[in-house]
Amino acid sequence: MAGAAAAGVSRGPRACSRPGLWAPLEAGGWTEQRRRRQERRAYATPPAAGAAAQGEDALWDLCQRRHFLVGPQPPLGRDALRAGHHPGLGPLGVGLRKNLASQWWASVAAFREHIFPLDTPLRQPWPAGPSGRGLCLVRADALRAVVRDPALGKDPLPAALESLVESAGTLREDLRHGALKHYVNCLDLVNKRLPYGLAQIGVCFQDVPDIGHTCDGIKRIGERTMSSLVWFTAARTAGQWLDFWLRHRLLWWRKFAVSPSNFSSSDCQNEEGRKGSKLFYRFPWGKEPVETLWNLGDHELLQLHSGDKSKLHGRDGRKNVIPQVLSVSGDLDQGVLAYLYDSFQLTDKSFTGKKDLQRKVLKLHPCLAPVKVALDMGRGPTVELRQVCQGLFTELLESGISVWPGYLETMQSSMEQLYSKYDEMSILFTLLITETTLENGLIQLRSRDTAMKELMHISKVKDFLVLHITAAKNV
Amino acid sequence: MAGAAAAGVSRGPRACSRPGLWAPLEAGGWTEQRRRRQERRAYATPPAAGAAAQGEDALWDLCQRRHFLVGPQPPLGRDALRAGHHPGLGPLGVGLRKNLASQWWASVAAFREHIFPLDTPLRQPWPAGPSGRGLCLVRADALRAVVRDPALGKDPLPAALESLVESAGTLREDLRHGALKHYVNCLDLVNKRLPYGLAQIGVCFQDVPDIGHTCDGIKRIGERTMSSLVWFTAARTAGQWLDFWLRHRLLWWRKFAVSPSNFSSSDCQNEEGRKGSKLFYRFPWGKEPVETLWNLGDHELLQLHSGDKSKLHGRDGRKNVIPQVLSVSGDLDQGVLAYLYDSFQLTDKSFTGKKDLQRKVLKLHPCLAPVKVALDMGRGPTVELRQVCQGLFTELLESGISVWPGYLETMQSSMEQLYSKYDEMSILFTLLITETTLENGLIQLRSRDTAMKELMHISKVKDFLVLHITAAKNV
Repeated sequence: MAGAAAAGVSRGPRACSRPGLWAPLEAGGWTEQRRRRQERRAYATPPAAGAAAQGEDALWDLCQRRHFLVGPQPPLGRDALRAGHHPGLGPLGVGLRKNLASQWWASVAAFREHIFPLDTPLRQPWPAGPSGRGLCLVRADALRAVVRDPALGKDPLPAALESLVESAGTLREDLRHGALKHYVNCLDLVNKRLPYGLAQIGVCFQDVPDIGHTCDGIKRIGERTMSSLVWFTAARTAGQWLDFWLRHRLLWWRKFAVSPSNFSSSDCQNEEGRKGSKLFYRFPWGKEPVETLWNLGDHELLQLHSGDKSKLHGRDGRKNVIPQVLSVSGDLDQGVLAYLYDSFQLTDKSFTGKKDLQRKVLKLHPCLAPVKVALDMGRGPTVELRQVCQGLFTELLESGISVWPGYLETMQSSMEQLYSKYDEMSILFTLLITETTLENGLIQLRSRDTAMKELMHISKVKDFLVLHITAAKNV
Repeated sequence: MAGAAAAGVSRGPRACSRPGLWAPLEAGGWTEQRRRRQERRAYATPPAAGAAAQGEDALWDLCQRRHFLVGPQPPLGRDALRAGHHPGLGPLGVGLRKNLASQWWASVAAFREHIFPLDTPLRQPWPAGPSGRGLCLVRADALRAVVRDPALGKDPLPAALESLVESAGTLREDLRHGALKHYVNCLDLVNKRLPYGLAQIGVCFQDVPDIGHTCDGIKRIGERTMSSLVWFTAARTAGQWLDFWLRHRLLWWRKFAVSPSNFSSSDCQNEEGRKGSKLFYRFPWGKEPVETLWNLGDHELLQLHSGDKSKLHGRDGRKNVIPQVLSVSGDLDQGVLAYLYDSFQLTDKSFTGKKDLQRKVLKLHPCLAPVKVALDMGRGPTVELRQVCQGLFTELLESGISVWPGYLETMQSSMEQLYSKYDEMSILFTLLITETTLENGLIQLRSRDTAMKELMHISKVKDFLVLHITAAKNV
């Protein structure tokens, strides 16, 4: 946690106050919807201080009710979040992160021909450094054996323990080291031609400062799903590549955002004077990094592969060079939070005449929404309607569209209640199969983003949905 | 590692001998290729003892050279594998496991409407049991502080350490507990209606018996990528569901196999007398489990959610019941090994007249092959040919087909050498762009499975490949 963004992280206990920093909600987004931005802003809550706190509460309530997040009761406040305490993800949150991860894979794989997937162990065979940081992995029985051994006197005990700690592995804090280790091995795959890259998504363990909420030592160790691209390039082009990846990553984050301008970048420097860049999302309480880029030079690579340096040589044109290492490391859990904040919209249902009702929508990007379609049935012959639903359900699933089987629900709800629920779940479209469908094949299709309904023939639905999602992907 | 299959696992050091247990290679597979099975068997290596050992060596050599596996030098023998030492996966092995995982997700998601994805922490907040097994996670600085504290006398030291061990978390050994913990929370998603399931793929940590190869304590802790489906069902239907999932999972494993009969199932019983079933793959050295199914009853659920039992109630028709827990847990790393063994074919190139040459092919199922297509260019105007390659590369990637950019290769190889390489990489088709392509749009397409070549118009290639892979998926 180097750099400017971490400077404000509190390490002591702190009250969980919520001043009115909630930024005005910005409407708008991808495809045609960008054009309608102005229009919809008219409905947006004005940026008053009270409304801001209310908005943040509403988002947290929604995320827990709709299973994007699971967390302790009461939920963590933003000070906890700020200090890096990520709440757990519920099934819908897991779906969102899976989609984010697969978009990340698509973006790195599609872009360059020479990026290979990696999967390195969570456990690193080296001991925790002398600074004492890091998580030791000790076998409980080995530790107990040392502690309980009655033959050991006062002095040998610490020595035996020290050697246990020295020989224990640690859990990885980032994915970079695994990639550096595989550099030589994978160089062969590209016939030693630079640049090339190694990509990985995986869990990393990070030390989270205690903020007083949690009294046990366990919660203080944070697990985070990180994305990592390690790019090996000749020194000659390293600067250009760093600029390239910075621009590429910033555009990637912005692509899925309702308010792209909340993602920004700035240069940074770590304790050792190494230069890099960070990408931030502007949360209501301030900017937090979502991705970090560093030019690591060749130092770590040389250190790791000591001995014959010639095996490190890659080809840059006709020259043999030891590459510079660029590290592009993103935090997908932070990304999930960022897009939840970005996509949440709270608007007065003033047009219905009921002032106290507010419409809450999560306008996640079509590629990120964990469930694309809800399938419900109206009144009519249950058996036949259910058969139609089941058929459409299977057809959509086979095209890779995730469907919410609302037709299985036995609790009676009004359509308005259902639409509210699905808006909160960020479901793009609600399909309603009714008696009319049995007669003429027409389905009512209701959009999350416009709240408009239209009729569509059942045979056209699949292609329409595929096209809608693909179009959003290619904007 | 309970049950019959584990009975033969050696726990002591053991020499790495390789008796001739290599089973005769069976050809054949999916779609039309099943019909050609007899024909191709004529070329298969006869099941002689010498050829068997040679075959196993050839497979290991291939897997390392083609980056399916990375492992120590020299590679682990089968005794190591038998004892559960999984070698690391190289980029192609990672690709294979990713495909296996996504097929697993597709199979559980497509089948039932009510299976939700989960992602639970790797770290469990409870201490290692009194049996002393399990991996403690201790902060290195905390452990060192206890050890080095000069104020501590002989007696308080073990007590302080013991409490450190007690409060330390452990790393998960399976994914089941995470799902049990989320049961109540996710019950809400299905409106309390049973059955429903929670699915997860993730890394688990397992204690691997030392076989004397590795002298450090670190390698002895195995990380495995496991798949887990935890299915909550009424006791009334639990037996039927267990049978259902057993059949479903066996068919799933067999679907991707060249020799489906090498996957089998048998009933098993654990130490506590609990009954279940295991699915095995027959490796040359014997059967090894790839997946395990248990009916866990309601014991663990009741234990975990002590207190108000009514919150555990799910609806079975009109009745409120506490569900039985079925656990379906697969080992994807073992699955990768199984399919590597299953798909490897070593045939004499007797038809070429060169007796000493053997054709080595990994006939991975089209859905599992990590790279589907290689794109190469023949002689002709380099700039134009490369442009065509680049265009086709992008087109194929956008359709989700992974492509090997052979046209970027600057080393000269004969086409025969390339075909051998791609067969070993399990690449389904090699596309060759030549001068002729510039004239009339025809591409040479060479199949891994038949080794036949045909010409196809460049505009048809994408649809042909998509169709081929989809057809293989739906067999």
